[in-house]
Amino acid sequence: MPYTAPTTEQRFALDVIADLPGLAALPAYANASPDMVDAILAEAGKLASNVFAPLNKVGDRTHARLDDGLVTLPPGFAEAYAQYVEGGWAGLGVPEAHGGQGLPFAVAVAVQEQLTSANMAFALCMMLSQGAIEALAAHASPDLQARYLSKLVTGEWTGTMNLTEPTAGSDVGALKSRAEPNPDGTWRIKGTKIFITWGEHDAAENIVHLVLARTPDSPPGTKGISLFLVPKYLPDGTRNDLRCVGLEHKLGIHASPTCTMSFGDNDACIGWMVGPENGGMRAMFTMMNNARVQVGLQGVAVAEAATQHALDYARTRVQSAKFGGGREPVRIIEHADVRRTIMTMKALTEASRALVYLNAAAVDRAHAGDAEGQGLADLLTPISKAWATDIGVEVASLGVQIFGGMGYVEETGAAQFLRDARIAPIYEGTNGIQAMDLVGRKLHADGGAHWKALLGEVRATLSDLGEDAELKLITPWLQDALDSAHTTSLWLAAANNPDDVAAGATPYLRLMGLTLGGWLLAKQALASRAHPDPQFAAAKRATARFFAEQLLPQVQALAASAMRGASLFYAISEDGLAAA
Amino acid sequence: MPYTAPTTEQRFALDVIADLPGLAALPAYANASPDMVDAILAEAGKLASNVFAPLNKVGDRTHARLDDGLVTLPPGFAEAYAQYVEGGWAGLGVPEAHGGQGLPFAVAVAVQEQLTSANMAFALCMMLSQGAIEALAAHASPDLQARYLSKLVTGEWTGTMNLTEPTAGSDVGALKSRAEPNPDGTWRIKGTKIFITWGEHDAAENIVHLVLARTPDSPPGTKGISLFLVPKYLPDGTRNDLRCVGLEHKLGIHASPTCTMSFGDNDACIGWMVGPENGGMRAMFTMMNNARVQVGLQGVAVAEAATQHALDYARTRVQSAKFGGGREPVRIIEHADVRRTIMTMKALTEASRALVYLNAAAVDRAHAGDAEGQGLADLLTPISKAWATDIGVEVASLGVQIFGGMGYVEETGAAQFLRDARIAPIYEGTNGIQAMDLVGRKLHADGGAHWKALLGEVRATLSDLGEDAELKLITPWLQDALDSAHTTSLWLAAANNPDDVAAGATPYLRLMGLTLGGWLLAKQALASRAHPDPQFAAAKRATARFFAEQLLPQVQALAASAMRGASLFYAISEDGLAAA
Repeated sequence: MPYTAPTTEQRFALDVIADLPGLAALPAYANASPDMVDAILAEAGKLASNVFAPLNKVGDRTHARLDDGLVTLPPGFAEAYAQYVEGGWAGLGVPEAHGGQGLPFAVAVAVQEQLTSANMAFALCMMLSQGAIEALAAHASPDLQARYLSKLVTGEWTGTMNLTEPTAGSDVGALKSRAEPNPDGTWRIKGTKIFITWGEHDAAENIVHLVLARTPDSPPGTKGISLFLVPKYLPDGTRNDLRCVGLEHKLGIHASPTCTMSFGDNDACIGWMVGPENGGMRAMFTMMNNARVQVGLQGVAVAEAATQHALDYARTRVQSAKFGGGREPVRIIEHADVRRTIMTMKALTEASRALVYLNAAAVDRAHAGDAEGQGLADLLTPISKAWATDIGVEVASLGVQIFGGMGYVEETGAAQFLRDARIAPIYEGTNGIQAMDLVGRKLHADGGAHWKALLGEVRATLSDLGEDAELKLITPWLQDALDSAHTTSLWLAAANNPDDVAAGATPYLRLMGLTLGGWLLAKQALASRAHPDPQFAAAKRATARFFAEQLLPQVQALAASAMRGASLFYAISEDGLAAA
Repeated sequence: MPYTAPTTEQRFALDVIADLPGLAALPAYANASPDMVDAILAEAGKLASNVFAPLNKVGDRTHARLDDGLVTLPPGFAEAYAQYVEGGWAGLGVPEAHGGQGLPFAVAVAVQEQLTSANMAFALCMMLSQGAIEALAAHASPDLQARYLSKLVTGEWTGTMNLTEPTAGSDVGALKSRAEPNPDGTWRIKGTKIFITWGEHDAAENIVHLVLARTPDSPPGTKGISLFLVPKYLPDGTRNDLRCVGLEHKLGIHASPTCTMSFGDNDACIGWMVGPENGGMRAMFTMMNNARVQVGLQGVAVAEAATQHALDYARTRVQSAKFGGGREPVRIIEHADVRRTIMTMKALTEASRALVYLNAAAVDRAHAGDAEGQGLADLLTPISKAWATDIGVEVASLGVQIFGGMGYVEETGAAQFLRDARIAPIYEGTNGIQAMDLVGRKLHADGGAHWKALLGEVRATLSDLGEDAELKLITPWLQDALDSAHTTSLWLAAANNPDDVAAGATPYLRLMGLTLGGWLLAKQALASRAHPDPQFAAAKRATARFFAEQLLPQVQALAASAMRGASLFYAISEDGLAAA
């Protein structure tokens, strides 16, 4: 499936939403000059279009395959990975102190979006490695960093996250893998991990596994978990005692090996502790939080790819005359209902992109020491993850619908986008878990300062909109959404019964996503007045208005749903639910 | 995947929504005594659970396979089909005059729901045959009926619908297949048809294809199309000149052979005209309309199966402590967000079932000569088809989410429900086409008498609800929905610009589905007061309230969306849409 990187749109979102000029003014991101960012987006776009995209269907058909503990990637993947390494892309967002290019996470996210649009299953490998780099950069000893970080930053080695076990999924604290100390300061790791993305493959010389396990006599739950670096190959070049013992047969992302990993079958799996004993959850959250932003990004990326794909078809497929419009068949893009679908796809894609870029820029500001940036990043992360991944699935499904019967046939590729996208609401913490995180931790952080500040920014945009003859048409819709978001936030923050809060969490997360999405598109519409391309500016205005009129009204329904409490959810007994 | 037929729920919906006693009082349906219907639901439920369900995953994995024009079904399918025939199920809803059991369509639909829940790909075969029976019963000559109908009614032969061609999908009038007269009154058929469901297989002795084609000098478009009966085997036992030349590789329903059929490669494909020349569209609509109800039913059926499947998992899977509730991990059904999901699945399933059963009963009353029944059936058909199939996809996707990572792994079966369900919004007229049918033809039929009468029934239920201490809590939500449905209907009926009407069609269809769904659940809640099982009655009340509070508020958002007109949809030029 051909893919064209939307560089104009990405650059605009980086400038207007991520405040790229502001980021570039920070010492850590001085490399992010406009010319440099343009060059990066253009070059990465070529890699995505010319190298990653042509392998997307190949990977879907061929799958990663396991034979005697070794995973073979689909044809072409190892060569493509070598090109990625050669281009130096793995270190894009890594600080120069660790051998990277020191660019903002927001810019790295824009590049990762391109790679993911082109080939989500493949780009997952890069995403996991970035998480491993981040965890090691923040928590590993200088000695461990010296031995492992540089090879991850060049991309010669790849990284993984090993959390999940059969009875410890969402509940990480229930994990049972063990780590016993060796006299030389290393640890013997023993346990089975499931759903390990890119846990084994043949495209890199070594794989650096980050593994959560319990040390002897550690306290129960999440407080007794430590993080270990467990390489596939030990420093002396010998194989470590770990292997891939199974691959999942999944709905999508077939080229991504989802491994069951067995550590220490022969009691000889060597690992090194990362960070302090029992400090594993904190280290893991370092990488998990950014991974959540990146999974939200997967939603954006698949939505973009599916939209391009469907638009291309809608512009060429001729079928039926227009409703009430004579007998001449037209290209289906001319049908109002198809146009609604395409506009919905476009509006959701651009809104979710803006939200994820805003989130990424907040992460950058937090890294530079900005406490407000940290608060904003924390608040936005569950919304980005859940709302954008729901959008990925929805937009991909709309894409299937645009193709009609051809969308249900695998050869078109529309169905693959839907199958691939469907994982993103599940992994890295299900969207339900994200909603609990939002209403549990994030809503109350710093006395609610962060959501209040954010909704304050929406209010400021409303007053700017009022001064624009066309864009003031957005204000009633955005004002209603803001009012509902505000009321619901207050209601949930004040609710006493945890069940009532949990019951409202998912609709609340969605209404925040919608409100913020509508706001960010409105902000872009305002800023587009200064854009050199009048066609682009007109599209931004129309998209913001479409989102406001067609999608923002859902906010009130979600608010009503969020503030009803839990009692009705439990009114039917379990036996009553199961009675047939 | 185990499946238990929800016979109590089905019987209740038949009684309360389809007015089974009223149908049984009609001479045509005198066989539909309560005892008979109970026996049928129980027996068909066994067939579904014991014979169809165990083949569901087998079919998904094995696929139907094509070799040299012959299709081999997955193992066990031919034997299961023989059991279906032996049980006499094929003739259930066929009038006794044609050798059937003379039961209402509504009862046949309840049986078909069971078979479809258990194995959608397989039950499609039965659905197509039922459509062929209906078309031949209504339009074929007595001679053709004598030769073909009886074998279809016993199930010994199966039937197909051949409409689609590569450039004639939604636009049936664009088809190019030809029929040339033979001196003996038969026709020579020539053409290629695609997406022919169960177009070829090895489970029946013969396959009766109903094929749309053009006779020489026929007028262009739909007015020049005739219907032909084209059997796989001719009356003398020789093979007709037609064959399956390809099978689609589809997202789901893998056991259902989706065939490319080539007719007349050797100019020797014999067919018989059904109904008058150029009258093919009318005959085809006879079977298409009921097929649309049955496709809506597929949404209900998959939703039911996915709900049972997810509920079973949620009651056993232990993961994480309750939100704000200590450290003890609980079964996930106890988490409020999971409970919301399960209740949403249940409420949507039961609401869509009620709508489809109401629709089926209206078809029955229409068949018995009731003009109001016909008007209601016509109005409801696009809503049943589109709203219920969207629900099938939504509920199946929620089911995947309940399973978390295990839902993305194919072995659980949750993903199969999603893959299978995804075809239903596409075939038998895409859901967009249904929305056009609703606002184009159905809204204006008889001066709007039918939608007004239907909304009048909603109003009557509102006043009944007001007299029940608990159920009156539903009234504000249902009243708001009714008001919005009424306003939007009037707006669309009065709109002058066809683009504006088409632009509002999809949200209008959805808001009608939601409003009617909420109404029918409220009706059931009222009627449940007389139900002998207090647990069942309590569940009906809670489900109706849940739907009203949690789902009906979406109606206002949809109404706002439906009444905005089309101008914003076309504000971005096509080049602007495609610019990256």
